[in-house]
Amino acid sequence: MSKTLVFGHKNPDTDTITAAISYAALKNAVGVEAEAVRLGAINPETQFALDYFKVPAPRLVETVANETDRVILVDHNEAQQSVSDRDQVTVTEVIDHHRIANFETADPFVCRIEPVGCTATILVKLYKENGVTPSKENAGLMLSAIISDTLLFKSPTCTPADIEAATELAALAGVDAQVYGLDLLKAGADVSQKTIAELITLDAKEFVMGTKKVEIAQVNVVDPADVLVRQTDIEAAINAKMADKGLDMFLFAITNILTNDSDVLVLGTEAAVVERAYDVTLVNNRATLPGVVSRKKQIVPILTPLFN
Amino acid sequence: MSKTLVFGHKNPDTDTITAAISYAALKNAVGVEAEAVRLGAINPETQFALDYFKVPAPRLVETVANETDRVILVDHNEAQQSVSDRDQVTVTEVIDHHRIANFETADPFVCRIEPVGCTATILVKLYKENGVTPSKENAGLMLSAIISDTLLFKSPTCTPADIEAATELAALAGVDAQVYGLDLLKAGADVSQKTIAELITLDAKEFVMGTKKVEIAQVNVVDPADVLVRQTDIEAAINAKMADKGLDMFLFAITNILTNDSDVLVLGTEAAVVERAYDVTLVNNRATLPGVVSRKKQIVPILTPLFN
Repeated sequence: MSKTLVFGHKNPDTDTITAAISYAALKNAVGVEAEAVRLGAINPETQFALDYFKVPAPRLVETVANETDRVILVDHNEAQQSVSDRDQVTVTEVIDHHRIANFETADPFVCRIEPVGCTATILVKLYKENGVTPSKENAGLMLSAIISDTLLFKSPTCTPADIEAATELAALAGVDAQVYGLDLLKAGADVSQKTIAELITLDAKEFVMGTKKVEIAQVNVVDPADVLVRQTDIEAAINAKMADKGLDMFLFAITNILTNDSDVLVLGTEAAVVERAYDVTLVNNRATLPGVVSRKKQIVPILTPLFN
Repeated sequence: MSKTLVFGHKNPDTDTITAAISYAALKNAVGVEAEAVRLGAINPETQFALDYFKVPAPRLVETVANETDRVILVDHNEAQQSVSDRDQVTVTEVIDHHRIANFETADPFVCRIEPVGCTATILVKLYKENGVTPSKENAGLMLSAIISDTLLFKSPTCTPADIEAATELAALAGVDAQVYGLDLLKAGADVSQKTIAELITLDAKEFVMGTKKVEIAQVNVVDPADVLVRQTDIEAAINAKMADKGLDMFLFAITNILTNDSDVLVLGTEAAVVERAYDVTLVNNRATLPGVVSRKKQIVPILTPLFN
């Protein structure tokens, strides 16, 4: 039987990379031959975590059927987010914290999805159920994932289970979650090396709201001014993208990881919807939304009904 | 918030009914208002278990959106097996032991699927994880489900986890699994009251194999002669069904729960495939297949490649 490959979604983030590493380690500990791999480049935040705990990045793969017939998916399940040749292999397990869609199997399998803030929180349970203690390195990586996905426990996606898991992992990893966590988030929030195109593309998602097409991009920063100093060029790039994709509105959220507020830059014919949604006035196409950090919980569900 | 309804698949069997009852009880024990309901008639085997442990049958429903906005699915996930208006409510949990298909959610939820023989085996884990001990009645019902789904641990679908769970449940229920189990299976194997149409319809599934349409029906008995005495009428009914549905083959498996062999009655232009598959000769359209009890594990995967 070939080795099982364990991987997260395309465009990998810290949760996806560290979940692959930590779950492959658990499978190995219980006697299953498994290897973590990745479907894309390591981002600066994840690289900080890997460097801090001295763990090498998983091997990059473009396809999997050429080397195995069995895979485990972590932190995703939807086909369009996964490896391109997934239909040629058997998915033996899914460990995830998202909705399920565009996914089916031919046979019974293991599926563990829970509505928590981070895949790592589920992995902590699985380690316990299997009677295995995570290594210091894997505990550190899983802690990094929870900090990343919950923005240091400040996001409304964070659940009590995430905080509990992070507390246990910080003790195992021998770090202070607040101190280490801020350093981790700052590593991911360094926008100085990012191009304009990267700023509005790396974490962007398109939505259909009513009859309108809306795209929402987000970037984390330690000082919004680091991004807004380039506002003129960013607006030009957004306007080009809107014309290209036929968008009715583009919202670019610049989220301050220190204050947990977001400055939003809004362009398009429907921009006034944002003013109504948050009771703000756009000045120079911008407004500050206090306490807004989660696109999933605090932007998409607020805007969607106003388009209907 | 309205009460969560918990239910299994249409055409309910013992696992589906008892899983709904036992999981609703666990949700109640942890403070969630939940009620077990069912989507169809109680079969004689399930009725035996309910009577034995003095538990009333769940309430029959045809739709759910008229009374709740939240449901939990047990022992199934595929849309065509579920309640007709499922798309109008939120599925908050799925507890199952089948493949996943024709299923998606809008939001993160709880999904617990494991490749074990019976949903009850997963429920036993969930009771433990929640620190709740099943009542004697619910232990007896979950034990009944494992016995039913694994044909008293003889089916190749039975896993070590199923046997372990059943052993614990038998102790809690205060019954001998072998003695009680045989009585339970016999209650389900009483074919004397079943019509010809029921025999070939109640547990029948249609498959596409290669370019051919094949239907496989199964019935459990304590003596195959109880069914085969009606062979002429059964063949007439099968031939009518084959003509009506354009089938190329119909296999009717009469499974002896005492010997764990199956007598098969095979009709249609492709019947010779069964002779090749099991190295037997059909005499009077019949053959005995020693040790064959599972359509899912011992019939479908054996026949399918021979049609390709």
